[in-house]
Amino acid sequence: MNAEIIAVGSELLLGQIANTNAQFLSQQLAELGINVYFHTAVGDNAARLEQAVNVAQTRADLILFTGGLGPTKDDLTKETIARLLGRRLVTDEEALRAIEAYFVRTNRPMTENNKKQALVLEGSAVLKNEHGMAPGMALSVNGITYMLLPGPPKEMRPMFTKYGRAFLRSAFSLSERIESRVLRFFGIGESALETALADLIDAQSNPTIAPLAGDGEVTLRLTAKHRDGAEAKRLLDETEAAILMRVGRYCYGYNDETLFTKTIERLKERGWTVAAAESLTGGWFLEQLTAIAGASAVVQGGVVCYTNGVKEQVLGVPQPLLETDGAVSEPCARLLAENVRAMCGADVGISFTGVAGPDPLEGHPPGTVYVGIAVRGRDTAVHRLTLSGTRDDIRVRTAKYGCFFLLETLAAGG
Amino acid sequence: MNAEIIAVGSELLLGQIANTNAQFLSQQLAELGINVYFHTAVGDNAARLEQAVNVAQTRADLILFTGGLGPTKDDLTKETIARLLGRRLVTDEEALRAIEAYFVRTNRPMTENNKKQALVLEGSAVLKNEHGMAPGMALSVNGITYMLLPGPPKEMRPMFTKYGRAFLRSAFSLSERIESRVLRFFGIGESALETALADLIDAQSNPTIAPLAGDGEVTLRLTAKHRDGAEAKRLLDETEAAILMRVGRYCYGYNDETLFTKTIERLKERGWTVAAAESLTGGWFLEQLTAIAGASAVVQGGVVCYTNGVKEQVLGVPQPLLETDGAVSEPCARLLAENVRAMCGADVGISFTGVAGPDPLEGHPPGTVYVGIAVRGRDTAVHRLTLSGTRDDIRVRTAKYGCFFLLETLAAGG
Repeated sequence: MNAEIIAVGSELLLGQIANTNAQFLSQQLAELGINVYFHTAVGDNAARLEQAVNVAQTRADLILFTGGLGPTKDDLTKETIARLLGRRLVTDEEALRAIEAYFVRTNRPMTENNKKQALVLEGSAVLKNEHGMAPGMALSVNGITYMLLPGPPKEMRPMFTKYGRAFLRSAFSLSERIESRVLRFFGIGESALETALADLIDAQSNPTIAPLAGDGEVTLRLTAKHRDGAEAKRLLDETEAAILMRVGRYCYGYNDETLFTKTIERLKERGWTVAAAESLTGGWFLEQLTAIAGASAVVQGGVVCYTNGVKEQVLGVPQPLLETDGAVSEPCARLLAENVRAMCGADVGISFTGVAGPDPLEGHPPGTVYVGIAVRGRDTAVHRLTLSGTRDDIRVRTAKYGCFFLLETLAAGG
Repeated sequence: MNAEIIAVGSELLLGQIANTNAQFLSQQLAELGINVYFHTAVGDNAARLEQAVNVAQTRADLILFTGGLGPTKDDLTKETIARLLGRRLVTDEEALRAIEAYFVRTNRPMTENNKKQALVLEGSAVLKNEHGMAPGMALSVNGITYMLLPGPPKEMRPMFTKYGRAFLRSAFSLSERIESRVLRFFGIGESALETALADLIDAQSNPTIAPLAGDGEVTLRLTAKHRDGAEAKRLLDETEAAILMRVGRYCYGYNDETLFTKTIERLKERGWTVAAAESLTGGWFLEQLTAIAGASAVVQGGVVCYTNGVKEQVLGVPQPLLETDGAVSEPCARLLAENVRAMCGADVGISFTGVAGPDPLEGHPPGTVYVGIAVRGRDTAVHRLTLSGTRDDIRVRTAKYGCFFLLETLAAGG
């Protein structure tokens, strides 16, 4: 069985947005064990959409559409498919009530064209839209299954995850369970990781092991297929254990976890609060932590000490130290971490000072970075990094190394 | 004349990456006045790629390919097209020398399969790869033009911009100039903007006016076509003037400018330095400013005062004020802005305090936000906002409103 994803919307063909819906659905279908052979994007044009559907019908068993379910006359996915399949469009009463309720709730008058959004292909299974107005729908005709999803990712993603997957599981009796698990690594490069695991990767079949690098991190996606879900899980556990025996030091989490969510979680477990002094990262470290709901329990805040003036006046780094050792130095990182910790009354203080580039600073090339970690009642540790990449890469990796060192500190106990 | 973009690579169909190449090329082709009617993505599979090319040949005058030009046996774009067009692949000596030089430069041994990257379709124009090894190529056969570009965006984008565009201009004698300009708005919603400009948008033909909303901002893309570039520019100027007469207050910049680059630019012009006290934004405002190279001339830094403890201990907000008025209040925003300004010795201090959500705080619902602006020697201004959206939306919009108010303050003079 194989699938094609057809995204409908002129904004795609004008390059105003990227087709992230196709990416999301491809990941989802891969997890369901359904092969995706083609993506197509087509504009808000009935003739060309019809042409795209005709082509897809010759090569796919499942066609997923995104977009073109809205209220305007540009939105013509349903209408085009209804015509091609010879099906009527009928009003779905539940969807209509939901749309009416939406207008009442937002205190706006409902215009006539909004009723169009409640129309569905006759005989289709309706997929509820819990984040917008237009419902999705799915039906099978002459051996081909059609699933229509809305275009906005905020509506499409939860609809597919909650209702679309279930429909496909039952329509295609997907008895083979696909279980997948992502292991997340930091502090090791993709090629070093692949070298360490070369024999495991070469011998892979079930589970498969797929490495992916990005943003200074590497992930391994393990995917196991089995009729028995427990057995699939056992296969994953076994492979994971073999991987972690070799490179466990660099594995910080699973699936959607990030270095930042992990840091918050471990701080909470330990009952520690954190404060940060950020020079080259300019606030990114604290921003990433505070973006997580509930961060206020463990993140006190800190100082963005972008200039030497702020390092001196706010964080008490003595002028002579800045003149002799410089801002990009081990003693400066040490003092920043210790003083921000004390100032904010936190259990641990972390500091970032270094050169993001593009120009060198104090004679150091871009990528020269010091990360200080000061824990109440302990010796302060300072880590020196030599990073490569653009200004952005260096800032991002610096903050991620901060989490990595913090997690090591938190794991070390004591 | 119309185009189709075919992206080749199984990583697209597995959802490991989004097809940003199609987005980039679509923007580029729109600027050249070439309509894009379809995007297709297909895996590293000769039979299915052949099928995709066959379909595209029936509906496009220009077919652009990205990906599949590398050294491995998975890379088969050139080979497939050579077979379909009955063309030989021949070694391009210049490309071969560039590849050899690359290996000498990086001090690595060149393996035999890398020579494959220097093969091009016989009779094609070779597009130089200045950021990688595989050259691109373009040729016209039986009224259809084929352009093959590498997959990595870092190689593809400069190749297309520098060599691909020139090839298309001359191959298609594109004498009509397309000039486009993006106007960027903040502080006004998409529907309010469209309503204010309804008659202009309805009457549009040359230039066209295309609104797009995202991340709390709205943009208008004006696109004019004319044989004479100066005349196209005049048409844009005229339409822009008509638009700005109505909604100029909300227009902060053009094209790739952002509220943050604009803020840095205006601060530099004015010779002012800025410091920020960030509560709900958690460092995002300073991070966005310091992400811009050269920010250190005007951004001093500031304090991320996520907890009341830091507001009190570091920024000197008195405990009684936090108890009576609360952290989410006009007086607190005022004091934060004034104190962070004084502490960091900046010309202007800006503060952000409020409720990002998901839970209410001090009895205020998410979206209740105060932004304070303290200028040396002037009365401090505090703006109250009522924002909607997710926690992330509220944080991002808060910081953007900060720029918007700062820009107003900078424009006001005095």
